[in-house]
Amino acid sequence: MYPSISIIGAGNVGHHLTLKLHQQGYNIHQVFSRKLPKAQALAKQVNTEACNHVEEINREADIYIVAIKDDGIASMAEQLSFLNQDHKIVAHTSGATPMTVFDGHFENFGIFYPLQTFSIQKEVNFEQLPFCIDGSNTQTKATLTQLAQSICPNVYDISDQQRNVLHVTAVMVNNFTNHLFAVAQQICKEQQVPFEILHPLIQETTEKIKHTSPKAAQTGPAIRGDQQTIERHLNFLNAYPNYQKIYKMLSQSIQDLHKNL
Amino acid sequence: MYPSISIIGAGNVGHHLTLKLHQQGYNIHQVFSRKLPKAQALAKQVNTEACNHVEEINREADIYIVAIKDDGIASMAEQLSFLNQDHKIVAHTSGATPMTVFDGHFENFGIFYPLQTFSIQKEVNFEQLPFCIDGSNTQTKATLTQLAQSICPNVYDISDQQRNVLHVTAVMVNNFTNHLFAVAQQICKEQQVPFEILHPLIQETTEKIKHTSPKAAQTGPAIRGDQQTIERHLNFLNAYPNYQKIYKMLSQSIQDLHKNL
Repeated sequence: MYPSISIIGAGNVGHHLTLKLHQQGYNIHQVFSRKLPKAQALAKQVNTEACNHVEEINREADIYIVAIKDDGIASMAEQLSFLNQDHKIVAHTSGATPMTVFDGHFENFGIFYPLQTFSIQKEVNFEQLPFCIDGSNTQTKATLTQLAQSICPNVYDISDQQRNVLHVTAVMVNNFTNHLFAVAQQICKEQQVPFEILHPLIQETTEKIKHTSPKAAQTGPAIRGDQQTIERHLNFLNAYPNYQKIYKMLSQSIQDLHKNL
Repeated sequence: MYPSISIIGAGNVGHHLTLKLHQQGYNIHQVFSRKLPKAQALAKQVNTEACNHVEEINREADIYIVAIKDDGIASMAEQLSFLNQDHKIVAHTSGATPMTVFDGHFENFGIFYPLQTFSIQKEVNFEQLPFCIDGSNTQTKATLTQLAQSICPNVYDISDQQRNVLHVTAVMVNNFTNHLFAVAQQICKEQQVPFEILHPLIQETTEKIKHTSPKAAQTGPAIRGDQQTIERHLNFLNAYPNYQKIYKMLSQSIQDLHKNL
């Protein structure tokens, strides 16, 4: 028997998880969001009930997936602690929040964290993303692992400590990388060069690391020690003092990392 | 009549350009590299003559493409100045070197710069990459543009100043981005978390900007102002003081860029 699932939170992650679990044949028991229209829009897509008050969340599901903002998880756990009367499983989807946030509220709790950047509009390829699972006990971990495996082939057993490492490094490879794209776009726009010219290079940068380690794939003036080019770039970046600092720091860091080769 | 072309330099760019031009039906007249075996290996693939002394480069080609290291271009220009007797076209493939490096040596000179990261082993998709062209006069620019268009659909007329902008921003979106991948890999390795878990996120990061501007695509604790998560990350990065500095600086930069929204 498939467990029935209630989804707490109708943001990017809650949205895509709900659709995927429904599509996979799970019964979505309730969809909760503080914003009723959001809960209703999502609930309608999976033929279930929407609610926007925590008191409306009932005890009839088997698994409760909390997919809300990080800073709301602790207080949500407190409000959901009545679920422990029936030994329900409560799991959250946050990369940033320790599993221990549930300590003292539940007996069976865990992590159900799909490591990917989600947008409401864009379909998610569950074949591609990694699922990080943890659980307060063997049975809970097994149940959450099975649930993840039924919608995704790449399921990992990841401790709080490992998840923290993944979250810090995810910020680096996603948020910071994207910011560098934004900086490049701003400069191109202000200098009247079409940013699109850089698109193929950006695609190739990530294409490369499918086959080569990023350390081995490193190119550019910093690793070549091409001081003349670095100076010309820094000179240009006089107009952008903050980006000049970033340029210096990252060039130095490239040289430091490869000094130890 | 297709012009005949001599290639000066058998590195990554020279290698791929030679093969592509040959495949497109151009006669490759000579291949030069200081390292004779390298010149020979490439020349053999396109049924032509290899040489490793500048004096062996003859006057029989129509266009000379200089694809050598940036800091060798000025001296190569001097040594090739005899080509100007026949008004030959000489172009270099560097993103970092101004066209003016050829001033005083030739009358017909220009830029033939494919903006992409090349590896000898990996085939280059000329359908995807942008070609940046410039020329010392209308006729030269037209000839180089035609040559580029015959092997690539995306040809841009780019001035020295614009090429400098593209080169700085290319360093940001390629070299720096790749370095962040390398940093993440190092941390994952040392913390015994498989770096491969981050691969799908990395791919999605660049996939996203095909449809969304990077500024609009920004996510993460910095843009959310999630100070608690930032603090936990910085705390973890105490073990990596240099990466902690990068984390702080880029988080600040994200917040600065979006403050002005």
